Amino acid sequence: MDAQAATIYAPIQDDLRRVEERLLTLTKTSIPQLVPLLDHTLTGGGKRIRAALTLLASGFYPHDPEHPITMASAVELLHLATLIHDDTIDNTDLRRGKPTVKRLWGKHLAVLLGDYVFAASATFVCDTQNVRVIRRFAETIMELAAGQVIEYFSCYQPERARQLYQDRIYRKTASLFCTAAETGAILGNAPEAQVQSLKDFAYNIGMAFQVMDDLLDVQGDTAVLGKPVGNDLLHGVLTLPGIMLLERYPENNPIEAFFLDQNQSDKLEQALEMINNSDIIPDCYEVIRDYCRQAVDLLASLPEGQSHHSLTQLADYIWERTR
Amino acid sequence: MDAQAATIYAPIQDDLRRVEERLLTLTKTSIPQLVPLLDHTLTGGGKRIRAALTLLASGFYPHDPEHPITMASAVELLHLATLIHDDTIDNTDLRRGKPTVKRLWGKHLAVLLGDYVFAASATFVCDTQNVRVIRRFAETIMELAAGQVIEYFSCYQPERARQLYQDRIYRKTASLFCTAAETGAILGNAPEAQVQSLKDFAYNIGMAFQVMDDLLDVQGDTAVLGKPVGNDLLHGVLTLPGIMLLERYPENNPIEAFFLDQNQSDKLEQALEMINNSDIIPDCYEVIRDYCRQAVDLLASLPEGQSHHSLTQLADYIWERTR
Repeated sequence: MDAQAATIYAPIQDDLRRVEERLLTLTKTSIPQLVPLLDHTLTGGGKRIRAALTLLASGFYPHDPEHPITMASAVELLHLATLIHDDTIDNTDLRRGKPTVKRLWGKHLAVLLGDYVFAASATFVCDTQNVRVIRRFAETIMELAAGQVIEYFSCYQPERARQLYQDRIYRKTASLFCTAAETGAILGNAPEAQVQSLKDFAYNIGMAFQVMDDLLDVQGDTAVLGKPVGNDLLHGVLTLPGIMLLERYPENNPIEAFFLDQNQSDKLEQALEMINNSDIIPDCYEVIRDYCRQAVDLLASLPEGQSHHSLTQLADYIWERTR
Repeated sequence: MDAQAATIYAPIQDDLRRVEERLLTLTKTSIPQLVPLLDHTLTGGGKRIRAALTLLASGFYPHDPEHPITMASAVELLHLATLIHDDTIDNTDLRRGKPTVKRLWGKHLAVLLGDYVFAASATFVCDTQNVRVIRRFAETIMELAAGQVIEYFSCYQPERARQLYQDRIYRKTASLFCTAAETGAILGNAPEAQVQSLKDFAYNIGMAFQVMDDLLDVQGDTAVLGKPVGNDLLHGVLTLPGIMLLERYPENNPIEAFFLDQNQSDKLEQALEMINNSDIIPDCYEVIRDYCRQAVDLLASLPEGQSHHSLTQLADYIWERTR
């Protein structure tokens, strides 16, 4: 973790450690064959940003500290479950530079492991004993699945791309950010208006985070990214940079050509080059910055203090990754 | 539905109709592409035995009738979700004589649809507002997934088969029967001892049901069964008839030969023939009858009345399918 992330996470360091411990309790299963798979899944790295959101959102008012830790663990587990299934469906071999479950153990076992981890996350959330929070969690699993379904159906289709993109990235990414913060705020005894503000904050952070992820996919290099560059377009998934390219070059667009004939990999190369040599990248940064600014504005109604400070820094951190 | 089933279902006919209506609300989704898939899933037939268990188990004491209907819908949805993923992993083309989701829309979409239906079942169960019931439900999703994982790992392995079989069929089938009845009893305000009796009743019914299913797999014909005969053994899954064959012919067993070299399909044929021409089939009937008898015995502590009568008949019905 870099220095800035360490500062952001400072007030929740101990709680995050307890989240890790809670996650690892899963490896104490009665099914010995699952242990290496769970171990691989739970120790695969990642910044635990969703768990951090739950913990930070809970930090404004006096509350039972166990519940946000439980909730943060559930949120993170749910995220890990979706990654397992996403990698299976997208046929992804590498994530964060490490081989995926699908790569190491095959698709069938990856589906079953994903189901198991989904279910485990649902049992975790029941420990909060809070029906409102449990319901939000279940609804979010549905949003995440719906987001993937929508992505699947919109593959290789350039029509109505921008509108579908907003909806899709909300469902597949921002919805879990929203629920992470909302449930943290509820379990942290925040007043209703502030629950809503923290949820809206997380919405903006989540949208920014996904646009950033999509941007890295077209411009990063494979070694840093831990997965191949241009992976989304290769699989027919249109993200903001590609959408901007389609909007700006409606004639003879290489993405359209590639979507029509996926053997033309030179068209894919050409699209990536055009994106990287235009003002599309800075324009995507602008979109991310707008989301982050709106996120910070939404914190205005919340009490000052460590949580407020960390959440503000979190928004800055996501924005600063773009520079 | 045959006459006997109609008698069993008589006291819950209206409630079961409402369960069907509740299930179909899923097709009112904002994702139009999902409608045909959901429609196919929800109208695929089936006896709704798990939903019936919830409704019948709730019928002993005064209670809010909405909650068991909600719970029965959740239980049935969860079952449908597991079928979608099972068919995907087992590469099954036919179920109840109809093409599977995997066959019609492919594996990737089947994984996503299964996730969506899993999540939908979890949102349904939240409508009961009962944390105990919600938790049992989440734990059951974990049992079901674990059952499939265990089945996956024990494929083509004849060792410790009988012991593993008990554990596996509990997890993959009886656990949901247990939860169907247990949650119905809880939401039906049954006293704790009777909740336990109804759960134990359902355990025995569930075990009987799975052994029966496994028996049909080796002896039915494809047209009646809606799927190929000997499908389990073909995929390396040992069930009670095969286990009995292994135990009775420890030398030169055709199942062992087939598991060692899956190109020897004549060995598979030979195993099926030996099973059908021995006393293995009647011995399996005996196992089913024992489960059903134990189930009926467990009803002794429950109040007389329509629910009691229907549950007794349900146990008879499962047993009578064997003759």
